[in-house]
Parts: sequence; C-alpha cells; structure tokens
Amino acid sequence: MKALRWHAARDLRLSQVQLRQPGLGQVLLQVAYCGICGSDLHEYANGPHSIPQQQAHPLSGCRAPLTLGHEFCGQVLALGPGVDPGLLGQRVAVEPEYRCGQCQYCQAGQYNLCESMGFIGLMGDGGFAEQALVPAYMLHRLPDSVSFRQAALLEPAAVACHALNQSSLQPGASCAVFGLGPIGLLLVLLARLRGVERIYAVDLDPGRRQLALELGATQALDGAAPDLRQRLRQLSDGGLDSAFEAAGSQQTLDHALHSLRKGGEAVLVGLMGQVQFDAFHLVNNELRLLGSVGYRDVYPQLLELLASKDLDLSRLVSRCLSLEQAVTEGFEVLLQDKRQIKVLVNPSPALAEA
Amino acid sequence: MKALRWHAARDLRLSQVQLRQPGLGQVLLQVAYCGICGSDLHEYANGPHSIPQQQAHPLSGCRAPLTLGHEFCGQVLALGPGVDPGLLGQRVAVEPEYRCGQCQYCQAGQYNLCESMGFIGLMGDGGFAEQALVPAYMLHRLPDSVSFRQAALLEPAAVACHALNQSSLQPGASCAVFGLGPIGLLLVLLARLRGVERIYAVDLDPGRRQLALELGATQALDGAAPDLRQRLRQLSDGGLDSAFEAAGSQQTLDHALHSLRKGGEAVLVGLMGQVQFDAFHLVNNELRLLGSVGYRDVYPQLLELLASKDLDLSRLVSRCLSLEQAVTEGFEVLLQDKRQIKVLVNPSPALAEA
Repeated sequence: MKALRWHAARDLRLSQVQLRQPGLGQVLLQVAYCGICGSDLHEYANGPHSIPQQQAHPLSGCRAPLTLGHEFCGQVLALGPGVDPGLLGQRVAVEPEYRCGQCQYCQAGQYNLCESMGFIGLMGDGGFAEQALVPAYMLHRLPDSVSFRQAALLEPAAVACHALNQSSLQPGASCAVFGLGPIGLLLVLLARLRGVERIYAVDLDPGRRQLALELGATQALDGAAPDLRQRLRQLSDGGLDSAFEAAGSQQTLDHALHSLRKGGEAVLVGLMGQVQFDAFHLVNNELRLLGSVGYRDVYPQLLELLASKDLDLSRLVSRCLSLEQAVTEGFEVLLQDKRQIKVLVNPSPALAEA
Repeated sequence: MKALRWHAARDLRLSQVQLRQPGLGQVLLQVAYCGICGSDLHEYANGPHSIPQQQAHPLSGCRAPLTLGHEFCGQVLALGPGVDPGLLGQRVAVEPEYRCGQCQYCQAGQYNLCESMGFIGLMGDGGFAEQALVPAYMLHRLPDSVSFRQAALLEPAAVACHALNQSSLQPGASCAVFGLGPIGLLLVLLARLRGVERIYAVDLDPGRRQLALELGATQALDGAAPDLRQRLRQLSDGGLDSAFEAAGSQQTLDHALHSLRKGGEAVLVGLMGQVQFDAFHLVNNELRLLGSVGYRDVYPQLLELLASKDLDLSRLVSRCLSLEQAVTEGFEVLLQDKRQIKVLVNPSPALAEA
C-alpha cells in the first residue's frame, strides 16, 4: 500500500510499504481522510521536532523514516488479538494520543500528560497512507450521521475543546482568540457553541478574520492595530475574562496578558520557546497563565455535537487532495497561502465523500 | 501624637502630628502593634514604589509624606458618623486593603482587585503611629484569646492564606515554598495546617530553613544546591503538585516551573519585573502560572484558627521595638540581617503585651 513517509525536512516520499498484520490490541484501518496539521508542516519545513530520529518511541517502537498524519478516520478492515470483534467494519475516528496506561497520569485519567506522551503520525506511523495500524483504544465509532470529512477535523477540534476546558469561561463571559489558524477558528466556533457572549477574533489576515465572523466571532480585529489592547479592553468593559494564545508568538502573548481584566486568564495553545512577561503585572492583577496540551475525554462530546448537527466542522475544509497531490498541492501550498485553512488528504478513493 | 512618616527613600521621620477627628465611616484607633513588612523596607530603601507622590490616592486622599505601616491592630478610641457604636473600645485587627465598593471587582466581592487598589500605610496614613484613622470596613474584632502580638501578623498570614486559596492544593499533595521570608514561612505553616502532606522549604539561609522545619516543613533544601530541581522531583515522586514563588527572582521562578509535575502549578506571590520562561515547557507539560495579590475573605477564618490555638503566629516574631527604635533597630537591621523574621513596633506602650 502507499504511504507518505517523512525522511527528513523537505523530504516527504510517497512510498510503497509492506503491510503488517495487526498485533495485540491493534486494528488495521482503511484511511478515509487525514488532515494536514501545523505540526506536520513544521516537521516538513524544518523538522525533526517531535519525530524520533535516534531512539524509537517507547510506545510505537517507531523512528524516522515514518508515515506522517494524525488527524484521521476510516473503516476497520481487520482486527488483531484482544480487540472487540464488534469493531470490524466500523467507521471510526482516531484519537491519536498514545497512552502507556501505567504512569501516574494515565492512572489518574490524564492520559494527555502520559509520561510517554506521543502521537500516532508523529511518533509512530500515521494516517497519510491507504491503510494504518492503530491501537484499538484510540478509536471512536462514528454515528451514521457523521461524515468522514467532519470526523477528520475532530482532532484539531479536540485541541480547541480541551483548551476551553482548561479555562473557566462561562456563558455570558468575554474572550479573545489570538491567531486564527484552524485551532483559533475552532476555539471561536466552540466558544460560541458554549454560549460565550463576546468573542473577539484577532489575526493579521483579513480572510481569516472574515471566516471567524462567519463562525461566530462577535467582532474581528486586526492583530497589527496599534490600539489593539485598548480596544479589546474597551469592548469587554475593562478587560477580557479569558484570552487564548493560538499564534505562538511573543507579541500575541503580550497582547493577551495586557487585554485581560484583573483576575483574568490566558490559555496558551500555541507552542513557543523562551518568552518574556511582566511578572509584576501578572501578580498585581492576579492573572493566570495556563498551558494546554492535547486533549482528554472530549471526543465523545464532540461526536454528539456532530451527530446532532449543532457543530459543523465542514466550513474549515479548504481542499481535499489525493495522496499523490499531498506534498505539492498540500504541504507546499499551506506553507505560503494563508487563505488555506484545513486541507484534507483522501488516501482511499473508495471512501471518498462528495 | 507621634507618627513615623515617609518623606523620601532613607528619610523616615518620627514627627509630632496633629490628630484629626474620625470622619464618616472612620474610627480612631490606638495602635498596639504594627509589623514591618517587606514593602515598607522597599519604600524605605529605594522608594517610592507604591507611595503616591504627585497625585493623592483616590480613596485615602493622601500622598507623601505619609505615615507607613499596614500590618497593625489596636483598640478603638473614637467613632466617626455612621459607624457601629458597638465598636467603641473594641480590640481590633486592621485588614488594610482600601475598597471603593463601586467597581466591578468590589461589586463581585473581589475587593483585593479593586480598581482603586491600595493599602492603608502605603497609599494612606497607616499604623507606625500612636493613633490612626481607619475605615471601619477594615476592622475585625479580636476574640479575647487572641493577643495583639498575634493579630499584628494577621496581614502577612492573609497574604499566604490567599495564595494557598489560589492554588488547588489538597491534603495529601506535595508543594515547595521558594523563599522563606515571613510570607514563605507562613505558607509553610498554613499548608501544614491544611494537611498538605509534603512541604519542601527552599532558601539560601540555613537559619530560615531551620525555622521552616520547626513550622512544619517536611524537608528544607538549600536554594543554591546544583541538583535542587532533580531532588525536588525525586522527593515528590516525579514532580510537585504546587510551587510557591515567594522570593521574587528569575532563578526561583525557573526552579519552581521545572520542579513541577505535569499539570502542576506555580503560584507567584513575590513581585518581580520582566522575567523569562520557557513557554514550550509550560504548554507541553500543561503547567499553570498563577498570580496572587493581597487577600479577600480570609481574616475571619484566620481569627478562628488563632482563637482555637490551632495557629500560632508568635514564633515568627523576632523583636518588638518602640516607635523611637523603629528606624535604627528595625528598618536598618532588617535590610541586612537575614536572621530577623518579623519585627513588630509597639507605638502605644499602654497596649504592650509581655
């Protein structure tokens, strides 16, 4: 079968791969759709960042070269030993976090913090392939009313949903989302669904701001406006309850912290390195700075929202590509064109949807 | 009456001051004890920091020169209009935060975040004086069994108590306190009282580490030890649940963030300026960085603990001085001698306790 494998930065190869039988607790999945994520782009542009090079990941046993892609869904083709026989033939979404099941975090149900934290498609062979071997614990059955195309967006939606869960946002509150990539746009969409009253969407790109308005933002603001912080504080009657930093830059972190009301909180979703902040400002205003990584226990709720049609993720999909088009029309274009939001790859034409 | 007034850095003057009648909602207090706080020392050493110089504080109407001292207690001598007559003659502690009562924070009960935030004794005439005019809303009656000397430590205890309330510490959890000044030592004492199982106390000074052990720390560690973070992570089985940064330095902030378990939290109590942190580490480990300022709603609980003798604050008192001794024996010595913890000033010899 064909798989898109990462060998080095700027070196993704569509290769013919020998398929293995599903092992203990694994299923073989026919992949319907797999989304291209920002972290896939980072690995492509200047990786490896998370991809194991020297030592295999303890839970996947994999190291480079490996098949990228962690935002995927498909149909169960075959079962390894110890897997629920009812899964055979089912349409499923993959929740791609590995879990050791043994560490203090897994034992406490905080499996997104697993000591052997990793993602299938970054630390193990993933979904940019016709078929994939996936641990059965990662699978969620799709209700009939949920399309594969929507299911492929569950993973970024789960990131946004978990970030909202880290916050103390209540209906009637105010928030801002800094950075309107897929995660930022999903934060807008899900905050609206939770009844958050005032949602301010901030980005440099006018097209993304427009999409945020369509997805439920109260107002969209240019991230380069010199009076951005003052305007956000005015709009929110003195300061935001919550701010989500989904751009991963020093400047947006500063904007976030200085747009909050006293007692407010900034949730960091974007990954950054060494940054500065004014600790006096944080203490004196009793602010909170909250990290959010991955997700836990949110897929069932998101699937219910998709099944009931309360949540529609399809508006985030810019294009659908074949495996053959993935690099030239997907990765290369996404690195340059801000109008593209989520690009899906459909490795199995038989499972393509209109 | 005599009052110790701040005129400029290194210029505290013991002056004869004309007393005013208590105004609307005020009482006149005969001051029993007033503690010297770290912020008093900052104002003395290189202020003004919080003391208003050009514009009077909106709630006190005061600007420099003014009478320092916010950790105080005493006996009510006279009442202004609109004050509960039952307060006359009462022994009281002062909760020195001003409240406007009008802003969104005061209306929500978060009076420590008041938009006109300020402290009597920093933004208005305070307790290093024989007598003080105090808004009646700042007063808490002292049970007979609570001494003035203990009551003078309520204010720093309230800071520590509020910082603990900002955390999610539970009995059985682990924490570290970085910086064993009065606030750090009170964090140790109050965490022990809450049943926190493992409390690691960190400071450069061996005398303060010894005192922390006597106050309930499980173990005391040298802040300069090269393997400090590793040892803290080992002692706490992989990482601390909570860390309290009460030293106000870049290095202790780094230690705090890198000694936490995944999902852990660092509460910042010490004031710092611009600092750095590794946002990737924060996000990837889902850490939380929480500011804590002042206190709200904690005096009644602390008074109960003092009345029941479950809490004994007297071990933090290093010395008691007269107003005349306050500068030479108090402020000057505290700036240099790390063996001194809390120094109290007794402006009214008639209210002195053995």
